[in-house]
Amino acid sequence: MRILGVDPGLNCTGYGVIEHGGGPARVLDGGVIRTDPKASLEVRLATIAGGIRAVVAELEPEVMVVEQVHSKYAHPQTAILMGHARGVALLAAAERGLAVASYPASLVKRSLTGHGRASKEQVGAMVAHLLRLATPPTPDDVTDALALCLCHAERERESGMSNQESDAARRAMAGGRDGRRRRGKSGSRG
Amino acid sequence: MRILGVDPGLNCTGYGVIEHGGGPARVLDGGVIRTDPKASLEVRLATIAGGIRAVVAELEPEVMVVEQVHSKYAHPQTAILMGHARGVALLAAAERGLAVASYPASLVKRSLTGHGRASKEQVGAMVAHLLRLATPPTPDDVTDALALCLCHAERERESGMSNQESDAARRAMAGGRDGRRRRGKSGSRG
Repeated sequence: MRILGVDPGLNCTGYGVIEHGGGPARVLDGGVIRTDPKASLEVRLATIAGGIRAVVAELEPEVMVVEQVHSKYAHPQTAILMGHARGVALLAAAERGLAVASYPASLVKRSLTGHGRASKEQVGAMVAHLLRLATPPTPDDVTDALALCLCHAERERESGMSNQESDAARRAMAGGRDGRRRRGKSGSRG
Repeated sequence: MRILGVDPGLNCTGYGVIEHGGGPARVLDGGVIRTDPKASLEVRLATIAGGIRAVVAELEPEVMVVEQVHSKYAHPQTAILMGHARGVALLAAAERGLAVASYPASLVKRSLTGHGRASKEQVGAMVAHLLRLATPPTPDDVTDALALCLCHAERERESGMSNQESDAARRAMAGGRDGRRRRGKSGSRG
């Protein structure tokens, strides 16, 4: 599964793409989309949308992961502008038919480090460790985007495991090898 | 000049289009883009973007007018979500090459009624009066979008008048009929 993590910001939007499933996750791409601070807001938003669309077109991720909206911004103005950037990122996902997942920052930290209040350094070290990178990616926006990817991968893995457990339980209850039973007419193929 | 006013909101985005110049302004369109509250955020944003793009494609306005971002929201969460909607509206403008103008709410009110703290009813009455409508459009989001259009039209008119005044002053100083002087070689055509 290919996962695109996005950390939207008006000045700098971080992104990362990982491939996950069958072995350790690996990075396919990571970087930032910077906008011209002198450009108009709408032009800056077009830069962000264009950058994300290019990554999606090239790497064809199946899901975009973003941080859940929180309201801990010191300045409401900053929060609203981040909302603009997040909005165009989500629009780019919707337009390409990507699924969207979002997690609170504390869950991302806990998923990676075991602590919901882990420091940036601890998260960075785990991102580097899990993706077998020599150092955490810079700037932080890339690390944050990759942390979102890894959090989603972990959640998918856990949900896959619990599905397998449910399958095993169903099999045990059904008493058969695979528990699948057909009722009524059942054509046989092959 | 065709002016598109947009009052972005996640649930309901109001819009209005007026034609302005040479006589009183007239309404070409007005309405709301409603999103499905049960749909995912990204799908709702795609609905807003799609609705605005359709209006722009049909009526080809030259400028989009939005309210300036303020920070008087009671709930930061609401402000951030409005930011998402405003972001995709501005993106739609940028992608079609529309100019974007934004005014503080108080300026819009003052421009229409003479008072920066005018009530919704006063603004609605002036919108209806200036656009020769029997009653203010409903819901309020449409009235707000048309108020933005009228504010921009008024600003354009004033700036046109002051340009004319400047032109008159320049002409007076140049002492000629049109004040245009060519230096050096000047070809004559026709």
